[in-house]
Amino acid sequence: MRAARYYGKEDIRIEEVDEQKCGAGQIRIAPAYVGICGTDLHEYLGGPTFAPTTPHPVTHDTIPITLGHEFSGTVIELGKDVTSFSIGQHIVVQPTISCGICEACTAGIENVCCNGGFIGLSGGGGGLSDSVVVPEGAVLALPNNIPLDIGALVEPLSVAWHAISAAPLMSDSVVLVLGGGPIGLAIVQCLVALNTKQIILSEVSKSRQAFAKAFGAHHVIDPLACDTVVVAKELSGRDGPDIVFDCAGMPASLKTACTTVRARGTVVNVAIWEKEVPFNPNMLVFREAKYTAVLGYQRKDVQAVIDYLAAGKLNPAKMITSKIKLEDLVEGGIKALIRDKESHVKILVEVGGMSRVDSAAH
Amino acid sequence: MRAARYYGKEDIRIEEVDEQKCGAGQIRIAPAYVGICGTDLHEYLGGPTFAPTTPHPVTHDTIPITLGHEFSGTVIELGKDVTSFSIGQHIVVQPTISCGICEACTAGIENVCCNGGFIGLSGGGGGLSDSVVVPEGAVLALPNNIPLDIGALVEPLSVAWHAISAAPLMSDSVVLVLGGGPIGLAIVQCLVALNTKQIILSEVSKSRQAFAKAFGAHHVIDPLACDTVVVAKELSGRDGPDIVFDCAGMPASLKTACTTVRARGTVVNVAIWEKEVPFNPNMLVFREAKYTAVLGYQRKDVQAVIDYLAAGKLNPAKMITSKIKLEDLVEGGIKALIRDKESHVKILVEVGGMSRVDSAAH
Repeated sequence: MRAARYYGKEDIRIEEVDEQKCGAGQIRIAPAYVGICGTDLHEYLGGPTFAPTTPHPVTHDTIPITLGHEFSGTVIELGKDVTSFSIGQHIVVQPTISCGICEACTAGIENVCCNGGFIGLSGGGGGLSDSVVVPEGAVLALPNNIPLDIGALVEPLSVAWHAISAAPLMSDSVVLVLGGGPIGLAIVQCLVALNTKQIILSEVSKSRQAFAKAFGAHHVIDPLACDTVVVAKELSGRDGPDIVFDCAGMPASLKTACTTVRARGTVVNVAIWEKEVPFNPNMLVFREAKYTAVLGYQRKDVQAVIDYLAAGKLNPAKMITSKIKLEDLVEGGIKALIRDKESHVKILVEVGGMSRVDSAAH
Repeated sequence: MRAARYYGKEDIRIEEVDEQKCGAGQIRIAPAYVGICGTDLHEYLGGPTFAPTTPHPVTHDTIPITLGHEFSGTVIELGKDVTSFSIGQHIVVQPTISCGICEACTAGIENVCCNGGFIGLSGGGGGLSDSVVVPEGAVLALPNNIPLDIGALVEPLSVAWHAISAAPLMSDSVVLVLGGGPIGLAIVQCLVALNTKQIILSEVSKSRQAFAKAFGAHHVIDPLACDTVVVAKELSGRDGPDIVFDCAGMPASLKTACTTVRARGTVVNVAIWEKEVPFNPNMLVFREAKYTAVLGYQRKDVQAVIDYLAAGKLNPAKMITSKIKLEDLVEGGIKALIRDKESHVKILVEVGGMSRVDSAAH
């Protein structure tokens, strides 16, 4: 079968590989649509970071590994003892890999498993292939009224949902989102679905500003044209936003988040950082603010996103700015995002999982 | 009357000044004992920092100002309409100054008032004088079984109590305290009073290590002799302490706190920082940890400390390592602490408030 294999920096190959075996408790999926993620770009440009160069403690794989962790698909084979799913069913995969035995796993916070990883980044196969075998517990049913291409957006929306669940969101909260990339825009959509009173987004790119407005941000600030701290405090109608999500992960966004948030407010960091940055804890001290960090998502977040999609409360179709074929992954996907990431939100790779119904048909 | 007046860096003078007037709703206190605080040392060595060089928004004073914000004393005059206190009563002063009109004050978190300050640092008189006039609302009664010298320890213990109130302390919590200065030792004592399951303290100074053991820390780590991260994780019996208090405020303690705390654990910063330090938010990301900052205390914290002292659950007498006269403030107090701060915890200045009963008499 075909698979997009990551060998290292700037080296991704579409090649023929053997299918994995589908054992007891496992399900074989034919991936339908696969989103390309910022993490994929980081691996391509500067990796391997997540991709294992020594055997991964759970998958035991090393590079080359198959990419693709944001995906929907169709069940095409059921391993022994699998009873919750049926052949032909549309599903999404929660790609989190965890060891199941560490303290975090035992405490039910497998997203911070100290041996963790992701299907499609850490070995164990990935969505960018004609088939992938995953544990039954990693699979969630996609209701009939959610098209498979929308299903591929469940993963980034789950990152957003999980980040919001770490914040003390109230009915009258004022929220500032720093950065209008795919995760920032996903947070705006989830905040809208949760009827948040006031959503302010700060973003330099004009096209991303337009996406934020389209997805329902009440105010969009251009930090090149004004002082985000001053304007966000003014817009908040109080001494600052109650919650700030840092989806930019830059020294400037860290400082803006910590100086804009109101007294006793909460900063939620959603970014992954490349290196140490300058930080003065006094920014938090003099307002007794909290700085919280989140990583990935849990099954309950993924299920909540599916439920909100099924209920029509999340409508993320406009996130899909391009669809490409598997063979065009590097040129039309990864390099297109590197060249012009600001006019894209999410590029989906059509892998071709059977029984596909896309959003255009709805 | 005599007062210790701060004129600027390395310039504190004991001089004769006029008494303040005692107006409606105010109380005149004869300070008995006054603790010398790290903030006083910072003002002496590198200030003015807190001391106002332009009129303070609440007190309207500028330097020179009278020092002394950790103090007990005796009521010697009652202004009009004061009914809660009587002449001769022993009291402590909560020195927080707040504007009463900003959003933090309106929300009842006057300790983060954006116009805030402290009696004894921001003008409005201070404890290091023969009398000081304060608002009735800043005064708390000292029960008869708490000596006046112990009363002067209420303020640093309140800082500790407030810091602990910001942490999710549970009956089985494992807590790491970084730094064994007066505040770190006060936190240890409050944790002991709250029956904390396991208290670990990390401190380089041998004499402070000994104080920590005497005050009830279950384990004391010398970071010069071993790796605090490794040892604290081992001692915790889990993947790290549930709560870490940073009372050191150094780049190394920030890193130790954020890498030692368990998944979903809480770091509470109690330090005031001098400048930006290197910080990698990923330390918190990969364990979904929280970083919380606290400032000062609220009246409920001060009252809780008084209640625990009165009930015999806090026994901080050993914190008092020296008592000096007001005239000896600079040489025997401030310079003694600068020369040899590690063998001292708290030096008290005996100002001489009437009806004094000290702990030696009990």
